[in-house]
Amino acid sequence: MDPIVHDVKYYESDQSGFVHHSNYFRWFEDARVKALEAVGLTYSKMEEGGFVGVVVSASCEYRRAVRFGQTVEIIPKLEEMDERFMLITYLVRDADSGKTRASGSTKLCFVGFDGKILSLKEASPDLYATICEYVGK
Amino acid sequence: MDPIVHDVKYYESDQSGFVHHSNYFRWFEDARVKALEAVGLTYSKMEEGGFVGVVVSASCEYRRAVRFGQTVEIIPKLEEMDERFMLITYLVRDADSGKTRASGSTKLCFVGFDGKILSLKEASPDLYATICEYVGK
Amino acid sequence: MDPIVHDVKYYESDQSGFVHHSNYFRWFEDARVKALEAVGLTYSKMEEGGFVGVVVSASCEYRRAVRFGQTVEIIPKLEEMDERFMLITYLVRDADSGKTRASGSTKLCFVGFDGKILSLKEASPDLYATICEYVGK
Amino acid sequence: MDPIVHDVKYYESDQSGFVHHSNYFRWFEDARVKALEAVGLTYSKMEEGGFVGVVVSASCEYRRAVRFGQTVEIIPKLEEMDERFMLITYLVRDADSGKTRASGSTKLCFVGFDGKILSLKEASPDLYATICEYVGK
Repeated sequence: MDPIVHDVKYYESDQSGFVHHSNYFRWFEDARVKALEAVGLTYSKMEEGGFVGVVVSASCEYRRAVRFGQTVEIIPKLEEMDERFMLITYLVRDADSGKTRASGSTKLCFVGFDGKILSLKEASPDLYATICEYVGK
Repeated sequence: MDPIVHDVKYYESDQSGFVHHSNYFRWFEDARVKALEAVGLTYSKMEEGGFVGVVVSASCEYRRAVRFGQTVEIIPKLEEMDERFMLITYLVRDADSGKTRASGSTKLCFVGFDGKILSLKEASPDLYATICEYVGK
Repeated sequence: MDPIVHDVKYYESDQSGFVHHSNYFRWFEDARVKALEAVGLTYSKMEEGGFVGVVVSASCEYRRAVRFGQTVEIIPKLEEMDERFMLITYLVRDADSGKTRASGSTKLCFVGFDGKILSLKEASPDLYATICEYVGK
Repeated sequence: MDPIVHDVKYYESDQSGFVHHSNYFRWFEDARVKALEAVGLTYSKMEEGGFVGVVVSASCEYRRAVRFGQTVEIIPKLEEMDERFMLITYLVRDADSGKTRASGSTKLCFVGFDGKILSLKEASPDLYATICEYVGK
């Protein structure tokens, strides 16, 4: 999965002078959306298939604070998956120095429009096959 | 329309040490939602009626910056309305001193699920009558 | 530590129709700030003492999605602490039904203006004593 | 001033399925920061000069709603300025079709660390000269 490059925004800072910690989860989402798009799992395809990817857990470890004016790379990795969920991890690093700023993860479940967890393999065999191929399963 | 009281949040600050200016529009929305609810114009009633209220313009004048730890009151006022739109103005003032912090406005149009502006009077005569009564029209 | 009550805001929703998952970390912060204030550990006292509380990790498990129009309670709990850090956990539950919506945690370190982790006991013996008393240590 | 290109983020949407109106002010800021940087007026130079640029008013007209998955261009224009303020306008248009989505403005004053409006010409003659040259004054 390809990294995204993000110029830290002024509005992402808080009064400590650093990026507010909640914004990292937005960066993770941005990186995840683009990475899943690249393997064909777009929001519109999911919706056509009658389901969405729902975040069921999220975590972040903050190593070194990031400021407005800096540029970071967010590197997503599909760590684990089966028919029902995906675990994606993320590395945030400084684009200039390459130093790690934070790391995190989100777990997504595939959820039908009725709110129930479903099997991607059953809901969308083609999408499931594409992703399995991508992850070498 | 009743004011809302808002304790300024840490995450609403930016690196200047003051509230980021975009957040005032969120406060306006919060005040507007509660005020319209009080006269019976809830989101769920609008959706049942086949329409929503869409912000078509918004503005804010910032007089004196607000910080985390302070408490503000946001006072909405239905300034003008007809079948198709509402103009609501807002006053933000310090809850302790009563001093003005900002003032602003938003204009909302009633928009059907087809994306077209519609007449509230036609879409929902009851809601329209209630609001007209409220504003003394 | 006392719970806070939060009316879910329209602007906290995303296009799924539910609250965006990043906002829970803002609710946690809000609950934490108010709870720490209640035991005397305010931002201004920390800054006077030459340090701040920095989030070094955060996590959330989302059980059941929350929507605009609902009211939630966020219940913080000081789970663990020593001179250098605090681990606070949170329960988010529906204010009406009492049903759990999410649970999470944040770990904070005490960090001096030089960016280094420091001992609260050394930086501010009084504050440390107050909190120890509070947590029954 | 150069336009910025922005891929609309999922987290910028609200439950209407469109971008929340408050986010346009964040896009304006992003465009403004990059445009002012290009003419040498960075945040760090302003801070070195003992002042910051403070938003004193902001407005936006929303023409046609924008969704997650679309790409927009934000085109800032330095409309007016003197020693004490800058008026910048913005055009938001669809990157594919070129159709206008919104237009807006922000007025910034130069404010010293004492919170008082100051003259850029006095506070930082070099920066003032550079910008005047840029705007052909």
